[in-house]
Amino acid sequence: MNSFGKIFRLSVFGESHGQAIGVVLDGVPPGMLLAEEDFLPDLARRKSGAPGTTPRTEPDRPRLISGIYNGYTTGAPLTILFENKDIRSTDYALFTDIPRPGHADFTARTKFKGFNDPRGGGHFSGRMTLALVAAGVVAKKMIPAIKIKAEILEIDGDADIQKVLKSLKESGDSVGGIISCTATDIPAGWGEPFFDSMESMISHIVFSIPAIKGIEFGSGFASARMRGSECNDRYTDVSGTTATNHSGGINGGISNGNDLIFRVAVKPASSISLPQQTLNFKTGIMENLEIQGRHDACIALRMPVIIEAATAVCLADMMLQSI
Amino acid sequence: MNSFGKIFRLSVFGESHGQAIGVVLDGVPPGMLLAEEDFLPDLARRKSGAPGTTPRTEPDRPRLISGIYNGYTTGAPLTILFENKDIRSTDYALFTDIPRPGHADFTARTKFKGFNDPRGGGHFSGRMTLALVAAGVVAKKMIPAIKIKAEILEIDGDADIQKVLKSLKESGDSVGGIISCTATDIPAGWGEPFFDSMESMISHIVFSIPAIKGIEFGSGFASARMRGSECNDRYTDVSGTTATNHSGGINGGISNGNDLIFRVAVKPASSISLPQQTLNFKTGIMENLEIQGRHDACIALRMPVIIEAATAVCLADMMLQSI
Amino acid sequence: MNSFGKIFRLSVFGESHGQAIGVVLDGVPPGMLLAEEDFLPDLARRKSGAPGTTPRTEPDRPRLISGIYNGYTTGAPLTILFENKDIRSTDYALFTDIPRPGHADFTARTKFKGFNDPRGGGHFSGRMTLALVAAGVVAKKMIPAIKIKAEILEIDGDADIQKVLKSLKESGDSVGGIISCTATDIPAGWGEPFFDSMESMISHIVFSIPAIKGIEFGSGFASARMRGSECNDRYTDVSGTTATNHSGGINGGISNGNDLIFRVAVKPASSISLPQQTLNFKTGIMENLEIQGRHDACIALRMPVIIEAATAVCLADMMLQSI
Amino acid sequence: MNSFGKIFRLSVFGESHGQAIGVVLDGVPPGMLLAEEDFLPDLARRKSGAPGTTPRTEPDRPRLISGIYNGYTTGAPLTILFENKDIRSTDYALFTDIPRPGHADFTARTKFKGFNDPRGGGHFSGRMTLALVAAGVVAKKMIPAIKIKAEILEIDGDADIQKVLKSLKESGDSVGGIISCTATDIPAGWGEPFFDSMESMISHIVFSIPAIKGIEFGSGFASARMRGSECNDRYTDVSGTTATNHSGGINGGISNGNDLIFRVAVKPASSISLPQQTLNFKTGIMENLEIQGRHDACIALRMPVIIEAATAVCLADMMLQSI
Repeated sequence: MNSFGKIFRLSVFGESHGQAIGVVLDGVPPGMLLAEEDFLPDLARRKSGAPGTTPRTEPDRPRLISGIYNGYTTGAPLTILFENKDIRSTDYALFTDIPRPGHADFTARTKFKGFNDPRGGGHFSGRMTLALVAAGVVAKKMIPAIKIKAEILEIDGDADIQKVLKSLKESGDSVGGIISCTATDIPAGWGEPFFDSMESMISHIVFSIPAIKGIEFGSGFASARMRGSECNDRYTDVSGTTATNHSGGINGGISNGNDLIFRVAVKPASSISLPQQTLNFKTGIMENLEIQGRHDACIALRMPVIIEAATAVCLADMMLQSI
Repeated sequence: MNSFGKIFRLSVFGESHGQAIGVVLDGVPPGMLLAEEDFLPDLARRKSGAPGTTPRTEPDRPRLISGIYNGYTTGAPLTILFENKDIRSTDYALFTDIPRPGHADFTARTKFKGFNDPRGGGHFSGRMTLALVAAGVVAKKMIPAIKIKAEILEIDGDADIQKVLKSLKESGDSVGGIISCTATDIPAGWGEPFFDSMESMISHIVFSIPAIKGIEFGSGFASARMRGSECNDRYTDVSGTTATNHSGGINGGISNGNDLIFRVAVKPASSISLPQQTLNFKTGIMENLEIQGRHDACIALRMPVIIEAATAVCLADMMLQSI
Repeated sequence: MNSFGKIFRLSVFGESHGQAIGVVLDGVPPGMLLAEEDFLPDLARRKSGAPGTTPRTEPDRPRLISGIYNGYTTGAPLTILFENKDIRSTDYALFTDIPRPGHADFTARTKFKGFNDPRGGGHFSGRMTLALVAAGVVAKKMIPAIKIKAEILEIDGDADIQKVLKSLKESGDSVGGIISCTATDIPAGWGEPFFDSMESMISHIVFSIPAIKGIEFGSGFASARMRGSECNDRYTDVSGTTATNHSGGINGGISNGNDLIFRVAVKPASSISLPQQTLNFKTGIMENLEIQGRHDACIALRMPVIIEAATAVCLADMMLQSI
Repeated sequence: MNSFGKIFRLSVFGESHGQAIGVVLDGVPPGMLLAEEDFLPDLARRKSGAPGTTPRTEPDRPRLISGIYNGYTTGAPLTILFENKDIRSTDYALFTDIPRPGHADFTARTKFKGFNDPRGGGHFSGRMTLALVAAGVVAKKMIPAIKIKAEILEIDGDADIQKVLKSLKESGDSVGGIISCTATDIPAGWGEPFFDSMESMISHIVFSIPAIKGIEFGSGFASARMRGSECNDRYTDVSGTTATNHSGGINGGISNGNDLIFRVAVKPASSISLPQQTLNFKTGIMENLEIQGRHDACIALRMPVIIEAATAVCLADMMLQSI
C-alpha cells in the first residue's frame, strides 16, 4: 500500500520520469495557514547540492491542488503535486535485460510482471521522497511544539563529511552513512500498546525510505551489551524525566516525555559509475555493466530532512490517536 | 491498536495477572489441520528454563475456542485462549508510587490515566508474547514452504551463552543479546512499494515485542560503511540469486528470492533484583527501590521463537497480499 | 473481516454450536465502571421470549476476561466471552447435501471450501449478534449523552404485534418486520466526508446483522418522490435545528444535530418448519426438505436491541474520530 | 476518510470550484491496457444533458498522471486528474450566513470550523462523483466477466421519465428518483462474514454518493412483509441457481452466484430556484432565500453510471480479497 497513517493519512503516487509525483494528505486539521512558500526550505534541504550529486535539475515547485482555501487548510484532502520537468525516457531498456545490482529493477519487474515503469526506477525511485518531504512540512505544522532535528553522524564511516566528499569526487563510487534523529517535547503517553508501539510506527515509515537498512532506538544495539542495572533509566522528577535515556524516550512502546532518539543506517546508493560484473538475464551471461552519467555519490546527505519528515508524519498521526 | 495485518489479521488481548491471554486470528485459510498439540513445541521453546528464569509456573495450554471444526480450520476467526493460573495480585501497588525504571509503569499510567492493570505489567507484560507465539504456529502452517530460523548470536556481548548464564547466576542483574533471523525460500515479489516495504512490515511487528530496541536487514549498519561497489549484490542466475546478500533479500522493499536476513537487539530485562535509586512520585524523594523475587535474567533466551513467530505472521499476511 | 471500527474497534469470533462466542473491543477508554451485571438488561432484551421462539436455553452470562481491573476499564483490549452450553452437534450433516433455502449453508460452504462449521449456521448464526449486543453495552457507556432507541414499527406488515404473534403460533412459518431507530443529541459535525459518511458507516454495521435487507435514512425511499422544495429541511435556530427532518439528521454525510433517524427491513427468518421443495445437491433431485424443531418465528422481535447496539458502536467510533 | 477499499483502494480529492478533482487508485493490477479514451463513455453518461441541467460546462478530460507506462497499468498508484475550468469563486459568501437547506453548508462549516471551501459545496459537491466514475472505469476492467447495469426505475414517482422532465422544465424545483442496479455473473463466495458482508460493503460505498438516502437488496423492504415460506429462495441446480431471487444474490453476506440486485433512493437535489424560508444565522431572522441560476432538476438522471461505478469499485476489491 502506498499509504500510511490512521487519522492523518498520506497516499503517495508518481514515478521518477513520469508526469508528476505527489501526495494526498487526508485528515489534515482545518484552519492551518499553508502556502507553497512554506515547502521551499525543506525541499531545498532535500537537494544535496554536494559534489558528485545527480545533475538532474528539477524546480520541485509544489502545487497545492486541493484542500486549501483562502490560504488555510480546509480539512478536506490536501493534494500536493510536483510536475516532473527533466524527464529522460531513454536508456532504461537496458536494465530490463540487465537488472542493476542493488536496485529494484529485478524485484519490481517480478512483482509487476514486467509492466513497471523502468525509467529511473519508476515508482521505486528515491525521487518519491519528494512527496514525503512535502507531507512532512504539513505534519510539522500539526505538531508545532515538537522540535525534530536529524543530522548526519558519519558518512563512509567518517565523521569528517567534507573530507569524505572531497575524496569521493570523481571516484564513481557511492558511500553510505548514519543519521541520528531527535524529537524533543513529545508528551508522555503517545503510542499504542503492542503492535502500534512508537518504535513500530517510526520504523514502519522510516523503512519506507529507499536505502534505509537499519534503525535503533536509544542505546539500540549497544543496549544489547548493557546490563539492566545500567540500561534502566531512573526517574528524577514527577514529569518523568530520567537521568539517562537509554530507552530513547520510549517505555513499553509509549513515549515517556524524554527525547525520542533514534539512528538509521543508510546504505550507499546503488547507482554507481564503476563497472559491475552482473548477469544479463536475456543472454544468461555475466557482463560488465557500466552506467554512464553522474549519480548521487552520497544519498545520506539528503536524508536528514527526509527522516525528519517521516518522523513528523508519524508523530502527527500518533498525536491524533492520543487525543 | 492491538491488531496487525491486512488479510491475515491478529488481535491480541489479556494481562499478565488477569484471567487470560489470547489472540483472535482473522483470515486463516480454511482446511488446515490444527490441534492443540501443534502449539506445544513452540510454546515450550518460549519458556527459557535457564538459570535465573522467572519461577512463575504456567501450563500455557492453548484452548482453541473458535474457528476449528472436526480438527480443521474453518476460515472463521480462530481464537486461542490461555487461562492464567499462577496469578499474584499483590505487591504491585508499590509501583504506582515508584514506577520501575525501564518498565512501562509510568507510561502506561500516563496513557491510561491510572486505570491500567499494574499487576506484572498488565497488558504490557512480556507474557503477551504467548499470544504472538501461538499466532506464529498458525502462520507457519500457512507458509509451509518457507523455513524461518532465529537464533541467539550473543548475550551480554559474548557468544558463549552457557558461560554467561553461569556467571549471571544469583547476580540479580539482567543481560541483553542479539538475535538473528533467516527466512529461506520466500518467493521474489512479496512486499508492497513504499510504505509497506518488507523492511517496514517486519520491523513494525518485531518492535511490538517488548525489549526490542534495534533491527537491521542484511548488512544493516555495516552497509553504512560500505561503498556501493561492495554493497551492491550482483545477480548470478535468472532466478535472481545474488553472489552476496548485503541487502538481506530485499530490494526496493520487495523480496528478491534470496534469504531474508535480519538481526535484532534485545535490551536487558528491566526487572532486576539489584537496588535502584529512583524517584518516589508520591513523596518526590529519591529512594532505593529493591524488588524481591527472581526474574528472567536473560529474556533474549526466549526470543528466537518469538521472533520467528513475528516473522511468520508478517510473511503470511504478505503472501495473501501478493497472490 | 470480522472487525469494525477505526479507533473503537471490535473483533467478533465464535460459532453457534462451538465452545463460545465473544468479542474483543480495542480502543475502549480507560476509567469506565463496567460489571457483568451491566450487560444483563440488553442481553435479556435480545431474547425475545415470544411465542414461537427457539427453545434453545442459554444463560448468556458474559465473562469479562481482559481489559478490566478493579471494576474499571483499563484501556487495554476488553474481551467478553460467552460460553455456549446448549450445544447440539447432530442433525446438521443433512444441510451439507441439502443447503437450506435462505440460509448461508451454500455460500459458506462455497467460500470456505466445505470446511465451515455447519452446526446451527456456525459463524453465520444469528447467535453472533450476542457479541454485538455486548459491544453495544460498552459503546453506550462511551456516548452517555446520546439516547438511542429502536422499536418495532410492524411485523408481517401489521402494526398490531400481539395479534400477529397469536396468529403465527404453531404455523411453522416465519415473518419479517420493520424497525425504526432514533438517536438523539448527536453533536453536529460527526461523520467523515465522502466514503465514511454517517449513512455509510451506519449501513455498513447494520447490514452485518443477519436478515437485514434494507435501510433508509430520514424520509428515505419516500424522499425519492418528494420535490426539493418539500424535502429540504429549513433551519429554525442557530444550533442547526430544522423545521422538518427529511434528511434524518445528516447533511453531506455529516450529522447536523437533529435526530438521527433510520429504518431497517428485517426479512423473515430462513428457519421454518414448513416443508420446502429444494435441491439435494448430492443426488441432483428436488426434495421436500422438512426441518423439525421450533424456530424463531419472528426474529424482528430481537432486533431493537441489536440495532441499538450497532448504532452505538458506530457512533462511539465516530465520536473518537471527531474529537 | 476519503478512501475506500482494502486491496484495491481509492483516495479521492478536490473541490467543486478548486483547481482540480481527482483520485488515486492503489492496488490496480499491472498489465491492463488503459487510455484516456476509455473514460469518455462513462464520463459522458455522467453528464445528464437533460432539460433543467446545470449550465456548467466542463470538458472533464481525464489526465492519467501516474501508474501508466506504454499504455499499460504498472501496478503503482494510478492517478486520474480532472482540472476544473469553469470555476466561479463568487456568490458563495452568502451561504456562510444563510446555510442552504438540504446542503452540507452548515455541517461542513461546523465540522471544519468555518474553514471549508464553500464554493459550490467544495469537497461535498456532487462533482466529486467524477472521481468515482473514473475509478469505476478502471474497476470495470478489473472484473471483465461481470456485467453491471444500473437504470432509472422512476423519477418524481413516475416511470415516464420524459413526461416528468417536460413538466419540470422551468419549475425551479427538483425531483428525486429510484435507481436499480443488477450485477450478473459474480462468482459465489465473495464477501466476508459479519462486518464486511456484501450488503455492508455495497451500502458503504453507495451511501458515499451525495443524495442517496436508502438502499434495499433483493426484495428489501418488501421482504419484511413476506413469510419465510415465500421469501426463501429454493435452489434448482448445483451451481446454486435459485428459483426466485428475493435475497438479491446474497446469503449470509456472501454472494450466491445469482444476480446481485439492489435499489437506491435518490432524494431531490437540494439546489432549487424556488424561494425558501430559512434562518439567517448571522441576524437570527428567518429570510426568504432565493438562489438564482439553473440547477440540476433531476440528479437521478446522472446516477446510473455513478451507481455502476461504486458497485464495480466494491466488487473489484471484494474479488481481490476472495482470491
